[in-house]
Parts: sequence; C-alpha cells; structure tokens
Amino acid sequence: LPAGNEFDRVFVVLVAARNPLNIGAAARAMSNLGFAHLRVVNPYSVAFREARSAVGAAALLREAQEYRSAAEAVADCTLVVGTTVAEHRELQHPLRRLEYGARIIRRQMKSNRIGLLFGSEKRGLSNEDLSHCHWLMRIPTREEHGSMNLGQAVAVCLYELARDSRVAVQPEKVIRATGAEVERISMLLLETLRASGYLNPRAVTAADKARRLVRRLDLTKRDADVWLGMLRKILWKLRAGDDSAN
Amino acid sequence: LPAGNEFDRVFVVLVAARNPLNIGAAARAMSNLGFAHLRVVNPYSVAFREARSAVGAAALLREAQEYRSAAEAVADCTLVVGTTVAEHRELQHPLRRLEYGARIIRRQMKSNRIGLLFGSEKRGLSNEDLSHCHWLMRIPTREEHGSMNLGQAVAVCLYELARDSRVAVQPEKVIRATGAEVERISMLLLETLRASGYLNPRAVTAADKARRLVRRLDLTKRDADVWLGMLRKILWKLRAGDDSAN
Repeated sequence: LPAGNEFDRVFVVLVAARNPLNIGAAARAMSNLGFAHLRVVNPYSVAFREARSAVGAAALLREAQEYRSAAEAVADCTLVVGTTVAEHRELQHPLRRLEYGARIIRRQMKSNRIGLLFGSEKRGLSNEDLSHCHWLMRIPTREEHGSMNLGQAVAVCLYELARDSRVAVQPEKVIRATGAEVERISMLLLETLRASGYLNPRAVTAADKARRLVRRLDLTKRDADVWLGMLRKILWKLRAGDDSAN
Repeated sequence: LPAGNEFDRVFVVLVAARNPLNIGAAARAMSNLGFAHLRVVNPYSVAFREARSAVGAAALLREAQEYRSAAEAVADCTLVVGTTVAEHRELQHPLRRLEYGARIIRRQMKSNRIGLLFGSEKRGLSNEDLSHCHWLMRIPTREEHGSMNLGQAVAVCLYELARDSRVAVQPEKVIRATGAEVERISMLLLETLRASGYLNPRAVTAADKARRLVRRLDLTKRDADVWLGMLRKILWKLRAGDDSAN
C-alpha cells in the first residue's frame, strides 16, 4: 500500500446513508484498504449510531465527522468526485470510468485533499450534491443491473485507488483551489451575471449551474485568487453603474 | 465489459457461508459485474433461503447450485483459486496479489472453467478446501485489519477480473475550445477588466496575461460558448453603466 499520508488526503463522504449495515460496511472497507477519514452528511442518526459496531472499524467510526450538507463536507477539498452507476442519465458532468478516474485521483492525492462522494442507497446523489463535484466516476456495472450495494461500491472504489500502487505515476504538484474558494467564485459569478442582466434573478437552477461551470474550470489556487479579484471588481463596477444610472 | 461467455466460465464458490446478507451481497455483486454462476457449499440452509431476496439478484440465486463439499463444487473446473487475506499464515500454496492473480485468471478464462473459492466469514477456507486450490489470491488489505466482509471481498475480486486496464489510459472524448475561441474569450475578458477598472488601460502585458489565464481554464467547446455569452453581456452592461454615468 502507498504511504499512509496519501490516503489520508482522501475523504469518503456518505450522503444521506440510511442503513447502518451499509455505513458500517463502508467503514470496514476503508479500514481494510487503509483509508481513515469518513464524513457523513445527514445520516439517519440511529443508523449512524448503530453502524459504530462495524467489525474492526469502531475507531474509524468514532472519528467520523457529521455534516449538514455536502457543501460543508467538501469545503476543504480541492477535488470533489461523485460516484454513480448511471450511464444514460442526463449528466451535466464529465463521467469517467473508475479505472481512469482513479488514476487522476491518485495523481492529485499526492498534494491535494480529495472528497469522494457516495449517495444514498435508494436515490444516489442529488443534483445539488452533484453540483459540488468536479466530475463523476462510474463503476463499470452491467446496464441491466447497475445499482450496487453502497458498502460494495465503496470497497470497489477504494480498492481501485489502492491497487497496484507500485506503478509509477507522476506526482501532481499543483495546488488546486479548495471547495470553499470555488464556492466563493461561483457565488460572485452568480451575482455578476445577475447584476449584468445575463441571468433572471428568479432562475432557480442558476446557482447549481454556476457552481458546475466554475468547478469544471478546475482552477489552481493561484488562478482562483486572480478570478476572485477580477469578479469582485467587475461586480463592484456593475453596481456602481447601476447606482449612477438611477 | 468483456464478452459474456468469458465470465460464464467463472464459478464463484461460497464455502460454508453463514450470513444470508453476505450470500445475497455476493450474488448482487456478481450480477452487477456480469458473473452468472454461483455455487454454494454447505450453506446454512436458512441463510441460503433468506439470501434469495437479494436486490436484483433473485434469478441468479435461484440458479445457484448447492454442493456438499468444495471438491464437488470445483470438480469440473480446470483452475481453482482460493481467496484469502492471510499474509503470514503458513501457506502451502503460491500466494498472489489480486492484481496479478486476476491477470492469470483473465487469460485462462478464455478457454477454461475457473473456480473462485471464498471461505466462511469467521474462518475463511479450511485446509481441506485449500487442498483443492491451485494457488491463492490475496486482496491487498492492511496487515492491521485484513479481514474483509465476504460480500465486499467478492465484489473487489470480481471487479478486478472485470476491470478494463485499457480504459485507465484512454483519452477523453470531450471537444475542447479552439484557439480562436480562446482568443475571443481572452479579448473579451481584457475589455471587461478594462471597463471595470480592474486593469490600467495602458498595462502592456495585460493581453498576454489574460490569454494565459484563459488558456489555463482548458475550456470545453460547450463551456467556451457559455463564457463568451456571459462576458459579452457583462461588458455591454459595464459600458451601459458608464454611458449613463456620463
């Protein structure tokens, strides 16, 4: 297995998991494969408490952190990847097969924090959850029976990250923008588009769209600062223009 | 996924499985990943009956065959591979990491029947079970917590058999923005930054900087169109504000 500190940059995020056996199974697979950081978003609290008895993973579950939204759970991550079994669903995101996506994650986890999102057993990730993802990763299941058990999906994804680590991969040394920075840029862009008249202020899906658009830029930390500065100035000027027009 | 007939030569053999949830989970992972043939050796018959309700895998479980011994269950197989998490246990068999073992199996399953043995949740495979194996395959779990959940172990092993190493290096099919489009966006951004007061109109290196900044976004063609539209609107509004201010 690779050095522990790389896997320590991977955060497994279970969104709205309902079955304590699945939360426990996810934790157990994490512990088996060397991943320590579990985050749970809005779990049924009973399920979460019961899960704490998972074989061999009690310590990991004790340290698990609880969040009220996917946004909060990935705020400190610079790469956020959603997992899905969907192939045909109309997705707004790049969809990568696990084999290929894992390679990208392995490269980035040498210096960046990665959030790996898993949706609920019934419905997977919601569109709002997905809007926090840079891209999606698909486990190559059969079309006729794509829906995987949550604990097994976690095990397979983490195995792919952990497998054959001796194969040399170039470390990526670029520091990426954090989730919080991407969010700030998205919100500033949204305000700017509203102030410019590009967006109808009542357009309800605009925030998700802006977020996805900015995520896809996959900004470095340095460029994120530049974009923040530019957008602030543009927005200020747009508003100043409106004031003087009134 | 490879042609179904290759996977049809793989027989997943669960020896003395006790927990119906695990038998069901194993069946579900098989169905997800495209493997049809389940054989069970001495299951608790109650567990086996209950397992038949596994999500999406009912047909597979109905077709599952029951045997009284591992020997009978693999009698028609030409390669028999046992799975284990043991690393230190005194083994009489060659032990291969899953990544390498699966490669050998993939080669053989083109023309041979493969038996893939999984032991009971508590004790794994017995020495007698092992004596029917050609070699053993180890899932690369941590030494400190090697013992994997049965359903997850089946999922990970079958995933490794089904994974397509060619996908890991395949380029994406996304269409990127052309140089001309990047240039148009850069120039519009430059105008916008000047109109907003972010840039001094006399700054000579500004155009190059804007161009590099936009290039680094590595936009898709589709997103390039969106950014063009947004910038045009913002610039128009900035100039309208200036006009009304004069």
